[in-house]
Amino acid sequence: MAQQQSIPKGTRDFGPAEMIRRNYIFSIITSVFRAHGFVPIETPAIENLSTLLGKYGDEGDKLLFRILNSGDFLNGVDASELISSNAIKLASVICEKGLRYDLTVPFARYVVMHRNEITLPFKRYQVQPVWRADRPQKGRYREFYQCDADIVGSDSLINEIELLQMIDEVFNKLKISVQIKVNNRKILSGIAEVIGQADKFTAITVALDKTEKIGVDKVVEELQANGLTSDAIMKLKPLLAINGSLLEKLNFLDAYLASSKIGLTGIKEVRYLFNTIDNAGVSCEVELDLTLARGLNYYTGAILEVKALDYQIGSISGGGRYDNLTGVFGMPGISGVGISFGAERIFDVMEHLNLFPPEILASTQLLFVNFGDNEQQYCLKEAQVFRQAGIATEVYPDQAKMKKQMAYADIRKIPFVAIIGDDEIRDNLITLKNMTTGEQLKINTDEAIEKIKRGW
Amino acid sequence: MAQQQSIPKGTRDFGPAEMIRRNYIFSIITSVFRAHGFVPIETPAIENLSTLLGKYGDEGDKLLFRILNSGDFLNGVDASELISSNAIKLASVICEKGLRYDLTVPFARYVVMHRNEITLPFKRYQVQPVWRADRPQKGRYREFYQCDADIVGSDSLINEIELLQMIDEVFNKLKISVQIKVNNRKILSGIAEVIGQADKFTAITVALDKTEKIGVDKVVEELQANGLTSDAIMKLKPLLAINGSLLEKLNFLDAYLASSKIGLTGIKEVRYLFNTIDNAGVSCEVELDLTLARGLNYYTGAILEVKALDYQIGSISGGGRYDNLTGVFGMPGISGVGISFGAERIFDVMEHLNLFPPEILASTQLLFVNFGDNEQQYCLKEAQVFRQAGIATEVYPDQAKMKKQMAYADIRKIPFVAIIGDDEIRDNLITLKNMTTGEQLKINTDEAIEKIKRGW
Repeated sequence: MAQQQSIPKGTRDFGPAEMIRRNYIFSIITSVFRAHGFVPIETPAIENLSTLLGKYGDEGDKLLFRILNSGDFLNGVDASELISSNAIKLASVICEKGLRYDLTVPFARYVVMHRNEITLPFKRYQVQPVWRADRPQKGRYREFYQCDADIVGSDSLINEIELLQMIDEVFNKLKISVQIKVNNRKILSGIAEVIGQADKFTAITVALDKTEKIGVDKVVEELQANGLTSDAIMKLKPLLAINGSLLEKLNFLDAYLASSKIGLTGIKEVRYLFNTIDNAGVSCEVELDLTLARGLNYYTGAILEVKALDYQIGSISGGGRYDNLTGVFGMPGISGVGISFGAERIFDVMEHLNLFPPEILASTQLLFVNFGDNEQQYCLKEAQVFRQAGIATEVYPDQAKMKKQMAYADIRKIPFVAIIGDDEIRDNLITLKNMTTGEQLKINTDEAIEKIKRGW
Repeated sequence: MAQQQSIPKGTRDFGPAEMIRRNYIFSIITSVFRAHGFVPIETPAIENLSTLLGKYGDEGDKLLFRILNSGDFLNGVDASELISSNAIKLASVICEKGLRYDLTVPFARYVVMHRNEITLPFKRYQVQPVWRADRPQKGRYREFYQCDADIVGSDSLINEIELLQMIDEVFNKLKISVQIKVNNRKILSGIAEVIGQADKFTAITVALDKTEKIGVDKVVEELQANGLTSDAIMKLKPLLAINGSLLEKLNFLDAYLASSKIGLTGIKEVRYLFNTIDNAGVSCEVELDLTLARGLNYYTGAILEVKALDYQIGSISGGGRYDNLTGVFGMPGISGVGISFGAERIFDVMEHLNLFPPEILASTQLLFVNFGDNEQQYCLKEAQVFRQAGIATEVYPDQAKMKKQMAYADIRKIPFVAIIGDDEIRDNLITLKNMTTGEQLKINTDEAIEKIKRGW
């Protein structure tokens, strides 16, 4: 009796049907990355904890998966240390390595370590799993893929334009209608400045970011709770109320941020983006959303987030500009801009909207039915001809009943079946059956190849 | 000052040049898998230790990377347990999960867990990293990729033929000349039987497997040390000496194994293989090597190993038939046959023999030089046209000196550069420079696309 098997909670097996669909998403994303000259890198799943700790905040440190030192990991550990039963302290003694938590910190470590091999601007993409000891829930896993592209070593706003082009191309190819929301952290800094609360920048951005979710009133409440003066909140309210065209928003900001140098720089950058995207061929909807802040504090310029228009699931891609990628590793001055595609959510959107092309699921195009030793030899040889013509082909390995072999073709969604008997061998022909229509034809190999390639 | 960064020993960063070459190998291997109707699966990097422990022998258990339980892992751990300082015992209490050690055990677990979703025969491939806390040394890593294809649920020898076809196709496409050595564990069982030492089967296979490496004399020594009788060794010697044609070997075996039923079955299977490979289109050298045993004890039928002919590095692929993949998980009767490609060694062979096509390294085909704001806008638009034509294109993001931009093209091995100035914008043309020959032409977009696609 088969034992009950399981995998750790929050992890998943991907079967063929899921893999084929996931690979479809990854292959479109990476083909767009490559079309723009991005090059792939990979970093190890295992990093030194000294590389990871302190980079994701206290909460992040707790969510790191730690790997027990190999061999006698207790060797040299003080008995008092053990008895103290301080898990955090003991963990730091018996674990030196941890699993990758995101792709950004390993990328920063990579840039520092390989700085003498890298030519700037460096356009890299990276598609690898990451691990977080988060509480698993619907749509949140402990092992999931991230899919990032970054350009480091260039301050030019062209790079922001290029990321918008890439987002547009990816979702066009996937046939997902999207809206890109953009904002600029310099505008947010300007806002904090002009309301006289530059010291509360983080609290302001965190609250603003929730506007769409919780509404203006709750945002105001949160700001009050965080100690913003009523004067500051009064100054902020017109900004929260603004809801016109791009031009109206920009005109409003020109006046609103007139006294903030950084704020005006932000407006200038946003103007450049919107003045350039049409010319750059970006066809999807792009909106300036002044409440967009994105959680990560390392963003310093443009920020963006992508939403699917036809299915509500939160953002399916996001990114922005940062000034100081490698500063935590003692190498200042490396700025960059990057985006990340949320492959798991994109998968859900495609599933729900039925956007996966059905033909990708038919991994095998042609099945040779197996009637006996003699026929089998003929099929083995014939099958290679079809494969060389680029047609994925199987020979049913066992001399099973016809019904069983046809059922296999059905379940595997194989669109064509080749039937070889004495007559076919004698005449050097194959009987090709179209599994969709049920029709069958006795034809030669070249004709069969052509039919299969044309879809019959 | 940039801090000295490092990654755990035995792990590696893969930069763009390495990634592109590794992906080239993986894409050829997986394209052959798909041409034969194999479908992809992926399993989590993290498995329950209960799934992994006891599957790789005592040595393997020690080499598993264990993951510390998250949260307060000491909660519920007895103080006496801690003070006893028994690392192995404590590890089993504070770690429930471990990193994947190979792809076979997770595949077996997958088959058992998903037995109701799988249609047999099930042809799956899997390309994922595995982790082993082995002592790192030249060519041996703690994180490395495995690349496996298996057919489970079919006893037919056609499957063995198909694996030989696939090996042949992969190495043909990679342009590596190889020899496939085949043997059959049933023949080895027969040998142990006829020399009267069936109980010493493992010792015999382990020793025989070293024949090529250490020579017949040392093998005999090892067998003596393992308690084989001198009568048995005398009976074995003619077998060790045999070195003729396939036919001579088979004739010898017919007589030698005449009294062993399992041995004769093995000969019959080997005859079928050799009688069928030509017809099946296998073009590389296939040799019957009676000393080939392969270490893994779960093999029960055909076994094979692949060697590169032009570079000595050990086997670059191997596999065989097993009777009982899922028996360890309480699900008997699932037999199968599989192969594994050693991607790391294949990489080394290709590097040393200079077999990577140089064109794969030019990830970007065309670079637009950036002279100023106006030119930049023109380039952004033009670049999209080239990308849509399938040409990987970059616009240099900064308005840097011409020399710097050309140096970037050089280092990135970009074969074509587009130069856009006032004249080009006015005439709607581009000046295309061939970086290999130094020639340049002022032409329209269509002509440029054609030239780049044809290689000028």
